[in-house]
Amino acid sequence: MCNACVIESVKQTMMSRRSLFMGVAASGAAAIASSALSARPALAEARGKVLDLTYVFDEKFPTFDGVPGIAYEEAVNFDASGYQLWKITVFEHSGTHVDAPLHFSKDGMSVAELPPESLICPLCVVDITAKARDDANAALEAEDVEAWDSAHGAIPAGACVAMHSGWGAKVATPAFRNTPDGAFAFPGFGKSATDLLATMDVAAIASDTLSLDPGNSADFAVHNSWLPGGRYGIENLAHVDQLPAKGATIFVGAPKHARGTGGPARVMALV
Amino acid sequence: MCNACVIESVKQTMMSRRSLFMGVAASGAAAIASSALSARPALAEARGKVLDLTYVFDEKFPTFDGVPGIAYEEAVNFDASGYQLWKITVFEHSGTHVDAPLHFSKDGMSVAELPPESLICPLCVVDITAKARDDANAALEAEDVEAWDSAHGAIPAGACVAMHSGWGAKVATPAFRNTPDGAFAFPGFGKSATDLLATMDVAAIASDTLSLDPGNSADFAVHNSWLPGGRYGIENLAHVDQLPAKGATIFVGAPKHARGTGGPARVMALV
Repeated sequence: MCNACVIESVKQTMMSRRSLFMGVAASGAAAIASSALSARPALAEARGKVLDLTYVFDEKFPTFDGVPGIAYEEAVNFDASGYQLWKITVFEHSGTHVDAPLHFSKDGMSVAELPPESLICPLCVVDITAKARDDANAALEAEDVEAWDSAHGAIPAGACVAMHSGWGAKVATPAFRNTPDGAFAFPGFGKSATDLLATMDVAAIASDTLSLDPGNSADFAVHNSWLPGGRYGIENLAHVDQLPAKGATIFVGAPKHARGTGGPARVMALV
Repeated sequence: MCNACVIESVKQTMMSRRSLFMGVAASGAAAIASSALSARPALAEARGKVLDLTYVFDEKFPTFDGVPGIAYEEAVNFDASGYQLWKITVFEHSGTHVDAPLHFSKDGMSVAELPPESLICPLCVVDITAKARDDANAALEAEDVEAWDSAHGAIPAGACVAMHSGWGAKVATPAFRNTPDGAFAFPGFGKSATDLLATMDVAAIASDTLSLDPGNSADFAVHNSWLPGGRYGIENLAHVDQLPAKGATIFVGAPKHARGTGGPARVMALV
């Protein structure tokens, strides 16, 4: 892949993207609905592979509250009808899924109202595996964002910033959600980091755990500030360990049901 | 955007993509599961805009059988809990959605098993609006594919071929599904076309109507041949009239629930 011209495209679109975001903030849903066509964000340096960042979602996939996230009911039977389909019942915030602003704000943007151009964006991955090894409730803080910036350059406006805590290796075990004595425990974002990312016009944050906030959070400080700020989040992002720190482009296949507070999403990256 | 190098990339990846598809066909789901990382298909000539090809999905969105495709139940109330979420119940084949092979074959690939690299691919749009104006059950036939080929060059292996029938303009009216006297009527693919597309290693077909087959189909010939062949379809694709005949890249955010025969998907294009 011709990286040089893609990098040039990143530079050229960064300013227009920043303008676009300010425009969306100013004019709201009316602007979003006015046309299906919208400016494309920078596509980073995608080089030729598709990485699926989505877990297979079934009744056993771990959930925040421990209740199965999906239930199946046969709607049409193959032997009887020659085709088949399910009626599925889903709690919106289960599986690899999107948190829309409406999840933590009474009148915020629904998942159907997220600007499409915010769903295809450069992906920056912040590695906190070292501190997560020592602390199951480790938080990605402002200093981790600053360290990423020092190592890799400025986080582009409109980017998605993903946390790599190493928790993906635990997804099939109870340790994905709890300590051995049953306490809620997993890494998440700290508010110092998300407050800083908000100043950088970052579009989304993504966690490789069950929540944007760490498991021991008492106040859901990140949910309560990041989402009402008109930005979205992704939880249970898969295969984060296979991503480069920078240079990938993320495609967020957010669901588009009306009034949705979020929902299971197909998330992939070009790396 | 630097089209020249993207076009070059298309040429370079076309051969490897063809090999990849044959490999997937030969080794099946085991190969798909072996790694999350897979070869990226040609990305056509995407030039810098995101086009959302997904309708907002709600209780009123037209469905094939007339039953609402989604129902909402409040799971958490904002005033009571400070956040909110729905439990949603969805018939898989409603809204803008994917038909997986399993929909029309007892043991075919589920929507969760579709190769990720088949979900990001070049998009070719075949315009049959002229004949659909005269015949509400017009079919996109082999001759329409051949005419597209003559005008635009070979359809790339791994592509998605979309039908543009003009039916998107009717989506908010009863005419999207029925004639004035209540008969089922809308355009679709003819088997002559999909049999030809299968020989070209096309990954997917997409319809801007309620079904892959025309409304007056008695035998669902396309569903019954295309899907069991290990390929997928998209129904109710939106904004097809805004797409170029060639040069766009489609991103198919297919859901990833286990054993799914398909489901509502977020579909976007880079144009």
